[in-house]
Amino acid sequence: MKKILKSILLFQILVASLCQAQTTNDDGMPATSNVPGANYPRIHSDLSVTFHFHAPKARSIGLQLDKHYDMERDTNGDWSVTTRPQVFGFHYYWLIIDGEWVNDPTSETFFGVGKETSGIEIPEKGVDFYDVKNVPHGEIRQHLYFSKTTSAWRRIFVYTPPGYDQKTKTRYPVLYLQHGGGEDDRGWVIQGRVNNIMDNLIAEKKAKPMIIVMEKGSATKAGEALQVLPFGGGSRSASTNQFAFMQAFEDVVINDLIPMIDFTYRTLPDRNHRAMAGLSMGGMQTFQITLNHLDKFAYIGGFSGAGGRFGPPGAAPLDISKSYNGVFNDPAAFNKKVKLVWIGVGTAEPKMMHDGIIAFHEALEKARIKHVFYESPGTAHEWQTWRIDLKEFAPLLFQ
Amino acid sequence: MKKILKSILLFQILVASLCQAQTTNDDGMPATSNVPGANYPRIHSDLSVTFHFHAPKARSIGLQLDKHYDMERDTNGDWSVTTRPQVFGFHYYWLIIDGEWVNDPTSETFFGVGKETSGIEIPEKGVDFYDVKNVPHGEIRQHLYFSKTTSAWRRIFVYTPPGYDQKTKTRYPVLYLQHGGGEDDRGWVIQGRVNNIMDNLIAEKKAKPMIIVMEKGSATKAGEALQVLPFGGGSRSASTNQFAFMQAFEDVVINDLIPMIDFTYRTLPDRNHRAMAGLSMGGMQTFQITLNHLDKFAYIGGFSGAGGRFGPPGAAPLDISKSYNGVFNDPAAFNKKVKLVWIGVGTAEPKMMHDGIIAFHEALEKARIKHVFYESPGTAHEWQTWRIDLKEFAPLLFQ
Repeated sequence: MKKILKSILLFQILVASLCQAQTTNDDGMPATSNVPGANYPRIHSDLSVTFHFHAPKARSIGLQLDKHYDMERDTNGDWSVTTRPQVFGFHYYWLIIDGEWVNDPTSETFFGVGKETSGIEIPEKGVDFYDVKNVPHGEIRQHLYFSKTTSAWRRIFVYTPPGYDQKTKTRYPVLYLQHGGGEDDRGWVIQGRVNNIMDNLIAEKKAKPMIIVMEKGSATKAGEALQVLPFGGGSRSASTNQFAFMQAFEDVVINDLIPMIDFTYRTLPDRNHRAMAGLSMGGMQTFQITLNHLDKFAYIGGFSGAGGRFGPPGAAPLDISKSYNGVFNDPAAFNKKVKLVWIGVGTAEPKMMHDGIIAFHEALEKARIKHVFYESPGTAHEWQTWRIDLKEFAPLLFQ
Repeated sequence: MKKILKSILLFQILVASLCQAQTTNDDGMPATSNVPGANYPRIHSDLSVTFHFHAPKARSIGLQLDKHYDMERDTNGDWSVTTRPQVFGFHYYWLIIDGEWVNDPTSETFFGVGKETSGIEIPEKGVDFYDVKNVPHGEIRQHLYFSKTTSAWRRIFVYTPPGYDQKTKTRYPVLYLQHGGGEDDRGWVIQGRVNNIMDNLIAEKKAKPMIIVMEKGSATKAGEALQVLPFGGGSRSASTNQFAFMQAFEDVVINDLIPMIDFTYRTLPDRNHRAMAGLSMGGMQTFQITLNHLDKFAYIGGFSGAGGRFGPPGAAPLDISKSYNGVFNDPAAFNKKVKLVWIGVGTAEPKMMHDGIIAFHEALEKARIKHVFYESPGTAHEWQTWRIDLKEFAPLLFQ
């Protein structure tokens, strides 16, 4: 057995010699998004971050975070840079080795922009609504179900609230919650920390206990050519209809997913206990699916999500009277039927996105469609905005 | 909204221009371990694999798979190589850009050797015991629990068998199943495909429905210095006791995990319905924990797992009479008490590891300790061996 141990240790030394961070007496703390034991990236008290990469053979190393940074090499072949102070929240980042964008081996990876990507969690002092706290915890369940629409098994993640297994007579409302383009069903679990946010809200009695269902948001109808999500990795010819997956996904949600969830979990299976929300592309999907099926949903959330779908080329500003088959044309009926429309956006999102959401909000206002418009101060088109959206949106559901 | 769409598309084009695979008329199929839409790596019918990376600025690109391969550059800056035929199963791999080991952006990532790593799934013709089939599916649950030993919340994954939610009066036996060094609680779920293996075995009535609990296998007692697992990323001083985490982990399992599982899930909470198994380092942990607590476990599995723990320096060959406080000294009593000892190894594992497992098997035989010795033909010290171990081991449990 000693031999086995020796070979384990030898292999370990081999591994340890590859691309590892070094201990220093630097101030700051390793990011919580680092792999266990990795000292870099380190976050300083002013939220600047020091990155480090051992690469004696590289000619140049850059960092792409909020902007491009050149890293500097010391005589040992250790490259490092300290960034300007970062905005709190979760950010994707890349190292650029001799011009090629790659992941930082000291970071956990996160499925974004169609591939696994490095990410860094910048903490906000005193803000812990998305952290694990000493409260009762729900579960995240990885569940497989068969979709007739796609004729294939699909993976979803389902949040069940604390006590779900024990309170076997209790039935729960359901929120269908979608990620954005380039991400997948893992997004809300890993980047979004949906379970922490909900556990904390439920413990504070700010939100009703609910089931949350997270699908992967892309689908290809059985027999049709593979649809790859916008931002998807790999090849996709320019002539592909980027949004052909939208109808297939709508069919999956309405015909396969909702019936399966209501059959499998202890749900309250009616529209008054069913919500849908999504971020960015997932917001676009949410508006399409809910507004086409108001018999199934009473609560609607767009988190930085396109609400106007796609008008004909040149159609600007948004003609709300024609959107979604004219569903907004009878505001009294709409406002009676729909208990919540949520329009969220971060104030630091790219101008085009921010303006687009504002335009949708203003068009709804003009059309006298009741809705909640929420601006998250100082946050961009990224997960911190959507975590805050969920924290503010979930308490308004099922009241 | 058109503006939002436009900015999405612009961003998409930007992203698409980074490190993406190109479509070709090459034969073979994209690996199932690729990110959606990625055409490379492609696996050919002889199980050779073509890798591809677009890196116009790199001076050299290598591939580390079963051995090192140099990739060749074409005039467009596309680098590629076709490997020799690969052994079926799951293999970690790396691209080496100008001397630096990094992940392949077209691959999903897998937590191995202390960091997120590219991996490729090589299919074996006609072998599908670890694939999703048209059978009832259990769930994988991400569960948080508080450990008094570490004074912290810990994440585990729990497999619940098909029907667990519906058969609310049924109680189930439990297998505690550990990953290896450098991996974590995700290993059996992602690389191991534990749920597919168990769903298929249960559907064929080859294994009893059971709950499987997967912990992360490293622990630091409250108030003590952080213990990092062998193979862990980041820094670790050479003087650290590499195995100090073993006692802490044993305490976590015995004092925190098992009581919590028996309280939270519908288990059969006695030793005749409790098993533990683990691979490599997890096998070492399994032997330590089960043999120190035979009042709690009746089934024991080592998958390529060190069984002799660590004798004093120079103590060779293994002195089985002294191992685990002499638990093997009364074979009649041991054989009556322990229903299964499983010793598995792949025939293609490194000689030192293979020899070590054989020596443990022979020592047990000499000591008249009943056990099942299983050699997986042609597989190495990697996940295919351990998937096969689980497939062969699980049917022997709780019969």
